[in-house]
Amino acid sequence: MTDTERQLPEADLAYYQQRLDRAQALLREAGIDWVLIGPSADLIYLTSFDAHLSERLNLLMLPAEGSPALVVPTLEAPLVGLAGELASLHTWDDHENPVALVKEIIGDAKGKKLAVGNQLWSAFLLRIQAELPGGAWVESVPVLRSLRMQKDALEEENLQQAATRTDEAWEEFIQSGPISGLTETEAMQRLRELTEKRGVKNVWGICASGPNSASPHHATGDRVIEQGDAVIFDWGGQYEGYFSDVTRTVHIGEPSDEFVRVYDIVREANQATLEAVKPGVSLESLDQVARAVIMKAGYGKAFLHRVGHGLGMEVHEEPYLVEGNTLPLEVGMVFSDEPGIYLEGRFGVRIEDSVICTEDGGKRLNEAIRDLIVMG
Amino acid sequence: MTDTERQLPEADLAYYQQRLDRAQALLREAGIDWVLIGPSADLIYLTSFDAHLSERLNLLMLPAEGSPALVVPTLEAPLVGLAGELASLHTWDDHENPVALVKEIIGDAKGKKLAVGNQLWSAFLLRIQAELPGGAWVESVPVLRSLRMQKDALEEENLQQAATRTDEAWEEFIQSGPISGLTETEAMQRLRELTEKRGVKNVWGICASGPNSASPHHATGDRVIEQGDAVIFDWGGQYEGYFSDVTRTVHIGEPSDEFVRVYDIVREANQATLEAVKPGVSLESLDQVARAVIMKAGYGKAFLHRVGHGLGMEVHEEPYLVEGNTLPLEVGMVFSDEPGIYLEGRFGVRIEDSVICTEDGGKRLNEAIRDLIVMG
Repeated sequence: MTDTERQLPEADLAYYQQRLDRAQALLREAGIDWVLIGPSADLIYLTSFDAHLSERLNLLMLPAEGSPALVVPTLEAPLVGLAGELASLHTWDDHENPVALVKEIIGDAKGKKLAVGNQLWSAFLLRIQAELPGGAWVESVPVLRSLRMQKDALEEENLQQAATRTDEAWEEFIQSGPISGLTETEAMQRLRELTEKRGVKNVWGICASGPNSASPHHATGDRVIEQGDAVIFDWGGQYEGYFSDVTRTVHIGEPSDEFVRVYDIVREANQATLEAVKPGVSLESLDQVARAVIMKAGYGKAFLHRVGHGLGMEVHEEPYLVEGNTLPLEVGMVFSDEPGIYLEGRFGVRIEDSVICTEDGGKRLNEAIRDLIVMG
Repeated sequence: MTDTERQLPEADLAYYQQRLDRAQALLREAGIDWVLIGPSADLIYLTSFDAHLSERLNLLMLPAEGSPALVVPTLEAPLVGLAGELASLHTWDDHENPVALVKEIIGDAKGKKLAVGNQLWSAFLLRIQAELPGGAWVESVPVLRSLRMQKDALEEENLQQAATRTDEAWEEFIQSGPISGLTETEAMQRLRELTEKRGVKNVWGICASGPNSASPHHATGDRVIEQGDAVIFDWGGQYEGYFSDVTRTVHIGEPSDEFVRVYDIVREANQATLEAVKPGVSLESLDQVARAVIMKAGYGKAFLHRVGHGLGMEVHEEPYLVEGNTLPLEVGMVFSDEPGIYLEGRFGVRIEDSVICTEDGGKRLNEAIRDLIVMG
């Protein structure tokens, strides 16, 4: 039991029923017979059920036609809530084998095409594959991703709230006094508390200072922030189940000319990416736009990652803004715009906003100040 | 980036090298050619690497003979630490396909037997299966579980520390004044803070009050605790990477005769289970011992779950004390002893300690008071 708490959007049966209906239509279009989804944002999205992720199998089984089934441990049956009205419940006791239930529900798998949610544990998939020989197993994400990629009005509102509250925490943070002399962990804790006090839950964050800022996924630690450091804060949290994700880079004391130059390049790449957002352009083209700015300035090899990822019920979700992703941008997609330059052993700069694609182009959800901030 | 922080045991290269050596010996015994392990306690156990769990593949590839390989996203390469000395590093950029690296390292899978860590996401397994046709895929747990099931001296010390600090939090909690009038969330928060202040990290917990206590995995919520309630607290956290997991049930105001009777039965079942611990007896026999006590008292159907689960780097891990598990108990196994009786709509009682199997039988790691506590 170490699941994070997740909040649900305002829910009624019809809200979830239409999502299941749309999922079934997508299965039929793709010629998939069943999709099997374990505890995950997908499960919450389709049924509101925030199941425990553990060695006890919880599984939504959605057929292309007909009623869904939900396989649930007996002791967790009281938790299914609304999902018990959307799907038939099949409970199993600790001494029973839940995969036998899966087999009973699907029947003979021979010639069937079965899709599997991306985060189902492999142990379950291997047991199910062994019990159901002859099935063709595929990933569910390419089939179902259009559902969660395009945010509805309620989802957009929650994402905007999450972003705005996180921005407000930043504005207070940069006025909150010096951070030099604090450890990364202490500085992150200050920012975390300012974010939590605005009703943002499950706050996560990276604080990377000095040479650590050149490691994009640095593990926040005990290094003491000092004069001359670049310090990257990359953090966010959930509002009504939807995440914020924002990055700002500050400098402790007067920055060098090179730092200012790198900062300006990253900011320009962030702005150019925003301006390239338009329904119909490919997702990879946004990555190319950011990369072109940074390459032209001579830092191409120091931009170590894709320019962005989808944002919603998870911090990273479809769509990914990366070379090779030729899917078109669509109205309602929400994603990060986060170019960065990382100079090993010296410093890094990353500036990240979340952005929604509208009919008229990109609109930032984050508006925390993007000017270079010098802190004490 | 929503990983929980995990702490490592005091580490040196030799400590992990001998674990990898033992894992390879187990692979050879089982006729397995490779085991593939993603971000998980298994990965930390074998290499100290606490990899990010995300859509970017991190994968330890351990062959039965020869050197292990570690597939890591380029931007996370600075995080591998010690693991970079234990395995050859294979980094991939965001626009590259990490499964191509997996294929390159394994070569032709035809006729090979490949084991997969239980928590690897299915999306990765499906991609790897598609790239490596002809392999036979099995679960890694039955092959490797003996490693983590039997705790070494350092692991036992950390588990004892985690248990004792959690017990001390409980002793302070029950002296901390009335909890009636608090919500479940508020009561759990008080207990959480008392646990955290003793250096226990990643504290998780369930508080289930009144009729909610009849739901074993109740989601702690806004119900206000009131006179006449049974209240179950099931919580724990990590010390140096190892978890505590303890449950106590209190009563608010004078309990009914029936509650006292049920409490005594559960306590007796907890004690009987402890006394049945002995190297060589089957794991399922411990479940039978607890169940026999509760059945004899007429509450057999109200004991909704197995009597226990292994405890270590995860709150639930091998071995499971459940009907059907005929594996023998071994010295160094640590597990929960947690019988319960759940009367739907009324109340539940659960009493849980963690126990280690020694040459001389079971020894409790938890010693928080087991007498029935009446709180205000």
